Amino acid sequence: MQFLALSGSLRRDSINSAVLRAAKRLAPDTIDVQLCSVLGELPLFNPDQLDNPGEAVRRLWYAVAQADALIFASPEYAHGVTGTIKNALDWLVSFEPFAFKPVAVINTSPRARHADAALRETLTTMAAHLVEPASVSLPLLGAHLDEDAMVSSAEWAPAIRSMLLALSEGVEQAVGSDPECAFQGL
Amino acid sequence: MQFLALSGSLRRDSINSAVLRAAKRLAPDTIDVQLCSVLGELPLFNPDQLDNPGEAVRRLWYAVAQADALIFASPEYAHGVTGTIKNALDWLVSFEPFAFKPVAVINTSPRARHADAALRETLTTMAAHLVEPASVSLPLLGAHLDEDAMVSSAEWAPAIRSMLLALSEGVEQAVGSDPECAFQGL
Repeated sequence: MQFLALSGSLRRDSINSAVLRAAKRLAPDTIDVQLCSVLGELPLFNPDQLDNPGEAVRRLWYAVAQADALIFASPEYAHGVTGTIKNALDWLVSFEPFAFKPVAVINTSPRARHADAALRETLTTMAAHLVEPASVSLPLLGAHLDEDAMVSSAEWAPAIRSMLLALSEGVEQAVGSDPECAFQGL
Repeated sequence: MQFLALSGSLRRDSINSAVLRAAKRLAPDTIDVQLCSVLGELPLFNPDQLDNPGEAVRRLWYAVAQADALIFASPEYAHGVTGTIKNALDWLVSFEPFAFKPVAVINTSPRARHADAALRETLTTMAAHLVEPASVSLPLLGAHLDEDAMVSSAEWAPAIRSMLLALSEGVEQAVGSDPECAFQGL
């Protein structure tokens, strides 16, 4: 099973990027976590360029299409989502393979509720399948842990592994329920 | 008085960009509306690059610092602000001249309430002075008007002029109240 991990921060020492790198290392053999490295290279979204969006957008689209599920971890800037994560989503709004994709939204700063709520609202509007048991709060902000410390932490490593397993269960259930067939039945 | 107009859409035929261009043409002699053309050229926000953000960010900062007030007009994408407008704001979060700046938020699609509310929340969090009488709904989406039609419209031209005058009154009142002195008095 392949998960694509998207961090909403381009900061080198971002706690959100660190938790996604930790997830890659903590994943069981049955799950491959790929870190999406293209978000910082995307052009700003322009609907006029959807037919010819350039190499970076095509790489994003390919990675999303290939993934069984997506994991989002993104900070809050000024009570809002980051421009970086919303710009990536803007390029995915009309990208058909995104619909019904199982997604997990990790909140590393549970006191920051505006961005988490806004990100969930946008993902739901885009017809993503939000896997709630995998969309967890991991209050890492202020814990002063880097990726290595998360991987070796008796507290956080199991929490991150549980998130991955919950997402894989969400993927299995989504495949079982086959939303496209459900829509045809309406 | 100088207003800086920021459109959250890069689409050529954007109704939000059109209303800002119309505002420039409809402004009385006492108000100069400058259209901010740099938003589409900004890099995606990276806090690590605040010391050396490049030419486009410096142009944004200079234009904001020079302006007596800002006018925002931005569409809603998937129940959220556009990545383009939020990215510009992310570069302004720690830019001191932004604080206490009088701003107007125009909503050209009143049925779209999520992005308008999120934009107001972020601007207020950034200590902008939201001028409510100038922050109006102009339900232009679906009216099929271009810039020329707005300028010559008996309905919309006066509404756009009223918005500009309300913002100029907000600027005058803000100068009168002098928020920095008010803060010193706390």
